[in-house]
Amino acid sequence: MKFSPLVDELIHSLRCLPGVGPKSAQRMAFQLLERNRKPGLQLAETLAQAMSNVGHCKSCRTFTEEELCPICASNKRGNSATICVVETSADVLAVEAGGHFSGRYFVLLGHLSPLDGVGPEELGLSLLEDHLKSGDISELILATNPTVEGDATAHFIADMASRHNIKVSRIAHGVPVGGELEYVDSTTLALSFNGRVPI
Amino acid sequence: MKFSPLVDELIHSLRCLPGVGPKSAQRMAFQLLERNRKPGLQLAETLAQAMSNVGHCKSCRTFTEEELCPICASNKRGNSATICVVETSADVLAVEAGGHFSGRYFVLLGHLSPLDGVGPEELGLSLLEDHLKSGDISELILATNPTVEGDATAHFIADMASRHNIKVSRIAHGVPVGGELEYVDSTTLALSFNGRVPI
Repeated sequence: MKFSPLVDELIHSLRCLPGVGPKSAQRMAFQLLERNRKPGLQLAETLAQAMSNVGHCKSCRTFTEEELCPICASNKRGNSATICVVETSADVLAVEAGGHFSGRYFVLLGHLSPLDGVGPEELGLSLLEDHLKSGDISELILATNPTVEGDATAHFIADMASRHNIKVSRIAHGVPVGGELEYVDSTTLALSFNGRVPI
Repeated sequence: MKFSPLVDELIHSLRCLPGVGPKSAQRMAFQLLERNRKPGLQLAETLAQAMSNVGHCKSCRTFTEEELCPICASNKRGNSATICVVETSADVLAVEAGGHFSGRYFVLLGHLSPLDGVGPEELGLSLLEDHLKSGDISELILATNPTVEGDATAHFIADMASRHNIKVSRIAHGVPVGGELEYVDSTTLALSFNGRVPI
């Protein structure tokens, strides 16, 4: 015998969250019931709204409930001639946290993975090509992850950009700042030697 | 600049869940938006219902949306003369998982902690006293946690039960099955020597 049907259902539903197993779900349910009822209700409302209303920015494909995301809608940045291509919306935040990039983004929401049925269409590359065709873009910075799929995606997009005679670059890969050579894997080290810059 | 207001609010709201920090909340929000919209909506609905409708069982104080929880409502167990006193609803599940106890429970939903303003009234001890007075109870098993507060709570309840001439016992504390003597702390080991049983 478990708990009452509604409590059981709450525990079960919480497991749709990533990283939440049976024990965590139980702990979450009881904590909410014991002393977080108001924030719990607030979460329920926000969740329902977000699941129904959040779509994609029609310019950069990131998640937004409006037509354009705050970055694309901003006067300063929305017309920038530089586009940074990233895999996920979280990557946008990571780049923004640095504060060194002031152009626009294009969010692929994934990477090329033919075996999983993810092709150029799923990544919205036709939309990216429309941007390239428009003539407003001077540079494309490819910031996909340095994985096999991320690299393949970067190469595919680089080919596309070169067809439109647009300058295209890939972010540098090498030893991270604060890292120690001793603990860096050999592939990264090889990349950092190949990508050495004169000082 | 962060995300759109609604996405930001979703990430913020998810942080009311225990153990969810800013990064996990972000990951949860994106995962739900990317590929879990339907379970997300389902969670929102269940959460809203649970936060509004789940109350306490009027006999054992565990969480339930009905008047009596499934255990108290069951014919077989609801009239049992043995009550096991536990601190939380999760403890009920832990005891039930063993399958060796077939009586009723009484859930304190906490432990005595005068500094935090938790006294006998907050633990529903008057309701427990009503059960004791009713004359239907023959034994009270105290299964509060073996912490300072849990022990204090157990002693307080034991005093109450002895005033009503009801047999009261505390679950045994000692070396857990499968544990190794070498790694057991000295207090537990002392308890297991004091509580030795003749074989």
